[in-house]
Amino acid sequence: MIKVGIVGGTGYTGVELLRLLSRHQEVTIQAVTSRKEAGMKVSEMFPSLRGFVDVAFSTPEDADLKSCDVVFFATPHGVAMAQAPELLAAGVKVIDLAADFRLKDPAEFQKWYAMEHTCPELLAEAVYGLAEVNREAIASARLIGMAGCYPTSVQLGLLPVLEGGRQLVETDTLIADCKSGVSGAGRKAEVGTLFAEAGDNFKAYGVKGHRHSPEINQGLSAIHGAPVSLTFVPHLTPLIRGIHSTIYARIKPEGRDTDFQKLFEERFAGEAFVDVMPAGSTPETRSVRGSNMVRIAVHRPGNGDLLIILVVEDNLVKGASGQAVQVMNLMFGLPERQGLDVVPLLP
Amino acid sequence: MIKVGIVGGTGYTGVELLRLLSRHQEVTIQAVTSRKEAGMKVSEMFPSLRGFVDVAFSTPEDADLKSCDVVFFATPHGVAMAQAPELLAAGVKVIDLAADFRLKDPAEFQKWYAMEHTCPELLAEAVYGLAEVNREAIASARLIGMAGCYPTSVQLGLLPVLEGGRQLVETDTLIADCKSGVSGAGRKAEVGTLFAEAGDNFKAYGVKGHRHSPEINQGLSAIHGAPVSLTFVPHLTPLIRGIHSTIYARIKPEGRDTDFQKLFEERFAGEAFVDVMPAGSTPETRSVRGSNMVRIAVHRPGNGDLLIILVVEDNLVKGASGQAVQVMNLMFGLPERQGLDVVPLLP
Amino acid sequence: MIKVGIVGGTGYTGVELLRLLSRHQEVTIQAVTSRKEAGMKVSEMFPSLRGFVDVAFSTPEDADLKSCDVVFFATPHGVAMAQAPELLAAGVKVIDLAADFRLKDPAEFQKWYAMEHTCPELLAEAVYGLAEVNREAIASARLIGMAGCYPTSVQLGLLPVLEGGRQLVETDTLIADCKSGVSGAGRKAEVGTLFAEAGDNFKAYGVKGHRHSPEINQGLSAIHGAPVSLTFVPHLTPLIRGIHSTIYARIKPEGRDTDFQKLFEERFAGEAFVDVMPAGSTPETRSVRGSNMVRIAVHRPGNGDLLIILVVEDNLVKGASGQAVQVMNLMFGLPERQGLDVVPLLP
Amino acid sequence: MIKVGIVGGTGYTGVELLRLLSRHQEVTIQAVTSRKEAGMKVSEMFPSLRGFVDVAFSTPEDADLKSCDVVFFATPHGVAMAQAPELLAAGVKVIDLAADFRLKDPAEFQKWYAMEHTCPELLAEAVYGLAEVNREAIASARLIGMAGCYPTSVQLGLLPVLEGGRQLVETDTLIADCKSGVSGAGRKAEVGTLFAEAGDNFKAYGVKGHRHSPEINQGLSAIHGAPVSLTFVPHLTPLIRGIHSTIYARIKPEGRDTDFQKLFEERFAGEAFVDVMPAGSTPETRSVRGSNMVRIAVHRPGNGDLLIILVVEDNLVKGASGQAVQVMNLMFGLPERQGLDVVPLLP
Repeated sequence: MIKVGIVGGTGYTGVELLRLLSRHQEVTIQAVTSRKEAGMKVSEMFPSLRGFVDVAFSTPEDADLKSCDVVFFATPHGVAMAQAPELLAAGVKVIDLAADFRLKDPAEFQKWYAMEHTCPELLAEAVYGLAEVNREAIASARLIGMAGCYPTSVQLGLLPVLEGGRQLVETDTLIADCKSGVSGAGRKAEVGTLFAEAGDNFKAYGVKGHRHSPEINQGLSAIHGAPVSLTFVPHLTPLIRGIHSTIYARIKPEGRDTDFQKLFEERFAGEAFVDVMPAGSTPETRSVRGSNMVRIAVHRPGNGDLLIILVVEDNLVKGASGQAVQVMNLMFGLPERQGLDVVPLLP
Repeated sequence: MIKVGIVGGTGYTGVELLRLLSRHQEVTIQAVTSRKEAGMKVSEMFPSLRGFVDVAFSTPEDADLKSCDVVFFATPHGVAMAQAPELLAAGVKVIDLAADFRLKDPAEFQKWYAMEHTCPELLAEAVYGLAEVNREAIASARLIGMAGCYPTSVQLGLLPVLEGGRQLVETDTLIADCKSGVSGAGRKAEVGTLFAEAGDNFKAYGVKGHRHSPEINQGLSAIHGAPVSLTFVPHLTPLIRGIHSTIYARIKPEGRDTDFQKLFEERFAGEAFVDVMPAGSTPETRSVRGSNMVRIAVHRPGNGDLLIILVVEDNLVKGASGQAVQVMNLMFGLPERQGLDVVPLLP
Repeated sequence: MIKVGIVGGTGYTGVELLRLLSRHQEVTIQAVTSRKEAGMKVSEMFPSLRGFVDVAFSTPEDADLKSCDVVFFATPHGVAMAQAPELLAAGVKVIDLAADFRLKDPAEFQKWYAMEHTCPELLAEAVYGLAEVNREAIASARLIGMAGCYPTSVQLGLLPVLEGGRQLVETDTLIADCKSGVSGAGRKAEVGTLFAEAGDNFKAYGVKGHRHSPEINQGLSAIHGAPVSLTFVPHLTPLIRGIHSTIYARIKPEGRDTDFQKLFEERFAGEAFVDVMPAGSTPETRSVRGSNMVRIAVHRPGNGDLLIILVVEDNLVKGASGQAVQVMNLMFGLPERQGLDVVPLLP
Repeated sequence: MIKVGIVGGTGYTGVELLRLLSRHQEVTIQAVTSRKEAGMKVSEMFPSLRGFVDVAFSTPEDADLKSCDVVFFATPHGVAMAQAPELLAAGVKVIDLAADFRLKDPAEFQKWYAMEHTCPELLAEAVYGLAEVNREAIASARLIGMAGCYPTSVQLGLLPVLEGGRQLVETDTLIADCKSGVSGAGRKAEVGTLFAEAGDNFKAYGVKGHRHSPEINQGLSAIHGAPVSLTFVPHLTPLIRGIHSTIYARIKPEGRDTDFQKLFEERFAGEAFVDVMPAGSTPETRSVRGSNMVRIAVHRPGNGDLLIILVVEDNLVKGASGQAVQVMNLMFGLPERQGLDVVPLLP
């Protein structure tokens, strides 16, 4: 049994990790930390876990995280980088669901997250937690910076057309018009995400620049093997879970004869968690609610030179905790679907 | 023109006062205070007011509230009682939308609001702002404690059967099962009212005791002229605006021959803001969205001894700011509908 | 492996059966019928099932339901009673999720469902599918009339105080104020349940009389062993899944010394799917979203003579398809939790 | 007083016309037709109108529409073209909110709406009801084909950069990624727009081609004076009202020195219903809820060559009924804001 610790179990990615890991047959949840709620049963805060998770929150000090095999950080940005070096030194694997180990350039991190990186020496070692791209590196990694929710959907959506330097679409006019449910903002007291603010309302945000932009461009450039520049416009939509990314790519002359449907189907044929929908589909977010699946549809209206890629994911599962469990499975040599074989909840 | 000041313009009752008063033809909005946002245009915080409200937030000091004819307090509990004495002394009328002047007994206030009342000497003078009950007293009042959102719906629903000591229903087994939209909790950063918490979710709260219980019982007892005891169970429902009260009353033997439909229709025949629906109706909250109207339906299943009264209101209008404007109209001798002649927004 | 047939797989209870049964390790889904969609893959209509359910809809004729071990009817009222006799004769067990076999009196059925009962001779044999009440009878039954969604919550909520003729509460003044999510109305094209009608809206319905009233009173009377009369008022609330029942019971003098919290805890101690919450709790519907669990809290404000029982369930799971799987497990001697060990989805 | 007839008063655009026109001081509502509901009071179907609209539905025959000054068609496509010729011949002005008179080419109409146009001879005369573009033509028109909901937002968003042949942006790579609330689908019984289908869900639709595409391109080409080709991708989002269009335009070399914020502000300076937000804004749909206002924000990330234009409108007001009243005002020489001076409802 893998001994798991979770730092920061009071947020949405924390409770989602607990939902998934509590049914994972190779895992024991050894500790869930929350300084503020120490002593309270986790299931008292989240009654949905009654009968499934019996552990109480503990302080980081009492948690003895060093005796875990792996520690997930479901925390605000900045927490993982403060604790990761010590855990790694003790032989514990670290999976950070926040942004501490996503960006390779500490200056970029500082620019977007307004804090200095405290262990830049680990950035080179840290593996980017996007299994479909980095499966082998993940399997042998000690430290993972999990892909963000938006970046997961955008990178998977563009993977087949950019991978390996393919010259199918223009790489400097890419647009990702993304829509996220409100849980993406986390479980923290803020006016902007109140029900009476975000309900029956739709808006863009971060148009000037969003933290996920450098992550997306870094990831796409790595996939492509050359610089890629994508314009990312996130929107807040009144759903609890779900991201829908509508990606626009201009097809290059050398890409015009490509059968994009086939390209996507072949690329993802062996992937457990990427489902290429039949031609003409328009996937809906609820078709992946509660599951680690991403569904993708590819459109080329009028057989013209614009490729439209639609991607849906559950931002808390494939966009966060589910993908983290997938990555953990890889790190411990388990079947990738273990603990993630959940049917989406519809309606 | 009536010079109006609003203390606390950043919450939902504040913006709702501004929506209504900005179209009120006898009113000038002289000042809207917010210490925190002083200097910012009100319409910058609430773009819905662009073109309708040109004023900026000011500090209480700069606002010169004493030069107003009337000041509304759309503030947390405790603010109005700190400022009312001085304003009243300056000849300014005061309308408090919070609870400072609702309960007649300062001990009760202290018990439920966890603060000492700082001007108990004003409690006797303060008139309870429920126009359909206290119209005359309101017209000559200097100081109003506006009825709460739930209490407005419950008192109006029971008014015809309790008024003037009528012996139609049992007064010690009354139940009000009330459901409120999330805006009732105000525009303040709290986890419990986040979209991802309150959305697609339904729960009771305050079953042990809710602040509106003493207010309801005080009001009903005053209406009845004898003690009335009602069990009040509030619920949070995923709508932005709206309260639906389902009231259960046991009909006394002496009430069994009453034509309750007729009783209700006659009682409210002259009321501008109470609409008794045809027999058999089930009013919906959206039928009053954005309006000061209350709609009531009366049911007596199987002609038995249980009376079921359904009441819907918009908690921010008739349950708060609209009713406050109605009360202001009464205080200044204006037509009661002035500024409130708004068609509900459906869908 | 149990060979399962599902008649009527295009509605919400159908897709929910498929979600649960597709992960049930003792079950093979042999046929899903829909005359209208025959030939279409089930997962084409419900992409959430892609990768989990590979079967296509078939016509009833092609389905060879007689070779199944058990057939679920997830159909409109009236379908099961037309097909049950033949299936039973062929040795197939029948579980009807509609109302055909709920009411024992065919005249009552005809009154509430506006159709004549075509096999009244089966009504006596049919077992009411509420496992916590009828476990043994279910285990040996051939034909089950599943409990309705509202009736499940109300009966479980009152079970401990009424069972076995207990004289704890008045049985003629019971009230159940129930609130249901919109999926309870089914997946059929109707104006009243459109998003733009039912969204941001709350209303009562069926106040004059609802089909679940006779079912509730029949069930409670059977539980109590004497006539029970409950007033049932359903409400439509803007959530997708979930029922919240607020039940009011007057405590009799002989019940006043009862420790109701303890009574409930002891009654349900061995039940896999009934969770009595700690004293003072207010359970939320999302705490059971997607799961077969019912959560109950018991309140007695001011230690007075009113008992308030709060019950939450997922109307599509414990209120329909999950309970049907639970019943199937009992009928086939399987562990009651088999295939139902799902963590609720929160948020 | 202008005598108004409304054909088809049972849908959302119908009730919205009634909401607005019932407060319009120069209007008398003479008839509201619905063959199916003839005889029923309009306010019985829409209780929100109780006290504001006293008229009953009548059959088209009884309605005597020829005695009206103007008739609005709030009907499915195809109804207006059947009745318009006779009304026009009788001297009645006609405003069609459906698509019968939007497209200039009857072949295009037939292609997209799957019916033959029955009065193509009127298409040349019909004026496109987008006031900000066609104000003068509208003022003297007899027959108006109102702009669609999506096309209104997209055309207003691109008006300043395309008008009069301006060479500021590429006209063959334009993209409009649009998101609509569910009321846009109308008040008709359909599975896809049920609360339990469209709630907590997000999806694209019509990616292959949507009826509003030819309308948008026709309108933009007319504005530009040269062919414009825009890719239009609509999405369904779980809000009741509201459209958010995110428009992407590539800036041409000759447009790079343009101050787009200023361009937009100047273009719309005199417009009553177009509000150019301050630089950097991200307008939200609720900021125009219930009002005829459109709010626009202009972004140019990194001062690069991509222009992002954000447009919000209420699809039932500026996208339909409000704009129709605006057009009526123009046709009758009334102030454009008459009856439309409504503060948006927030929250």
